[in-house]
Amino acid sequence: MGRQANINWSQLLQDIQQHAVKQIARGISLVENEAAGYEQLLLSLPANHDTKIIGITGPPGAGKSTLVDALIGAVSKDGKKVGVLCVDPSSPFNLGALLGDRIRMSEWYNDPNVFIRSLATRGSLGGLHPKIIEITELMKAAAFDYIIVETVGVGQSEIEIAGLADVTVVVMVPEAGDEVQTMKAGLMEIADIFVVNKADRPAADQFVRNLRLMLAPAFNNHQREVPVLKTVALEKQGIAELYTAISSLLQETHDDTKRAWLLTERAYHLVQQKRMKDIRKDVLQQKILEQLRDDRFNLYRFVEGL
Amino acid sequence: MGRQANINWSQLLQDIQQHAVKQIARGISLVENEAAGYEQLLLSLPANHDTKIIGITGPPGAGKSTLVDALIGAVSKDGKKVGVLCVDPSSPFNLGALLGDRIRMSEWYNDPNVFIRSLATRGSLGGLHPKIIEITELMKAAAFDYIIVETVGVGQSEIEIAGLADVTVVVMVPEAGDEVQTMKAGLMEIADIFVVNKADRPAADQFVRNLRLMLAPAFNNHQREVPVLKTVALEKQGIAELYTAISSLLQETHDDTKRAWLLTERAYHLVQQKRMKDIRKDVLQQKILEQLRDDRFNLYRFVEGL
Repeated sequence: MGRQANINWSQLLQDIQQHAVKQIARGISLVENEAAGYEQLLLSLPANHDTKIIGITGPPGAGKSTLVDALIGAVSKDGKKVGVLCVDPSSPFNLGALLGDRIRMSEWYNDPNVFIRSLATRGSLGGLHPKIIEITELMKAAAFDYIIVETVGVGQSEIEIAGLADVTVVVMVPEAGDEVQTMKAGLMEIADIFVVNKADRPAADQFVRNLRLMLAPAFNNHQREVPVLKTVALEKQGIAELYTAISSLLQETHDDTKRAWLLTERAYHLVQQKRMKDIRKDVLQQKILEQLRDDRFNLYRFVEGL
Repeated sequence: MGRQANINWSQLLQDIQQHAVKQIARGISLVENEAAGYEQLLLSLPANHDTKIIGITGPPGAGKSTLVDALIGAVSKDGKKVGVLCVDPSSPFNLGALLGDRIRMSEWYNDPNVFIRSLATRGSLGGLHPKIIEITELMKAAAFDYIIVETVGVGQSEIEIAGLADVTVVVMVPEAGDEVQTMKAGLMEIADIFVVNKADRPAADQFVRNLRLMLAPAFNNHQREVPVLKTVALEKQGIAELYTAISSLLQETHDDTKRAWLLTERAYHLVQQKRMKDIRKDVLQQKILEQLRDDRFNLYRFVEGL
């Protein structure tokens, strides 16, 4: 639970609100490592913010990082501030997290409008980073225009990204052709935009047609048609169109239900942690062992006595 | 939880302690359904008891139910009282649980020394019945000599059965030959006795030899040699030997660590339930939605306010 740290939290928040990049990075680390007092920082975050979160997800090998890289370019060219959180362990952005070091793509290293950070998933089974909500809230205070969250679409993480992001982009490649039939319902369900990346490959057009068929409102419960866009991220093809599609969706009124669900799960978990703080399982087990040996253990009496 | 019930709990406990079969069944149902006041019954259970729990587990199709059936015969012939809890959804004993009705094997229906009860697993993913500890504690008050718990060896249930039972019997069939190499480490780990059932089949001897090799103390971390017994449960062959092996293991001093682990998990869960009783997720979600709409939601302030 973190070392004692002598930190001026209100100064730190001020610096973050001034978009001081080093202080943003420091703030994230303090939250990640649960440095003593980090809850104070989170308590003092303003609720009001205009930062939009863009979720980029999809199977491994779909080219998510290249797409994110290209998207950073488009956003940066637009004069907007963008923060990137990478919770995809297979991403090259995430090399830093794997090595216990922070590596930023050299292209953006000197761009003050671009901030890239990798987060270790820390074995939280299939989910996003355990403090992803806290970290995005902190970054919102830093007045980013966009936060891009890149994550691999497996397990729990895909419903989490849908709750976290204002718009969720699901990236696939034409090779996925046959897989689409058996594509995880989860990925279909959460996509606000579909991107078929590496669309210069032969099977691309057929794949896009199939995808559009599957996404037709008659066959699923999306409220409206889900756009399917073609990109060749490595050549920056289709990126401007993707950025336009994202921006336009972000203008629309947003349904908060998924976000409220995610926040409810997290809030419930935090209350649980707080209320169970005084109970250590190893101590319980020791007491239970003793009572078992004396043949006086009764589960409900034991629980009532805690 | 549960409907209001006008129950004389101390009379019920007395009847159960007199081994009144109908009242045992009623007590189990009340606990299963969390009838108002059931915690009182559990609180008043005596800690002292001599009932031993025999766990029977193994993959589907190993013949666990037939083996249990044969074992009931051996125990009953020995003049002992035996209760059987079936949490194996694939077992014919469990037909009752599947049909929402209680069916006892007709052979034992009129035997006052034999009590059989099926428990629905209720979707608790891979685990035993959520109230299995409570139900066995209740049955111990009824002065059974043995409680047999039959469960299919998948997922969480196998470490749970090892914590619950005083002796754990893992049942396999010779056909499992090649599978043994890849047998779940969990099943290897928890077995106090191995039974190769349907041992009249040709591959049986080879299978037993392989199993003994794998179980040699040099290759695993068992304290002592794990007996491998051959049975043909349908013909009642090897059952007397199995009963002897079980009885003899039950004489030995028992290591309580696994039991303490299971009880710790359950106790922790019960405390958590108690402490979170006032928090309803749907109410949380509604509040969160409102605050999101007013753009005044802050996770940590929200949690602090609960």
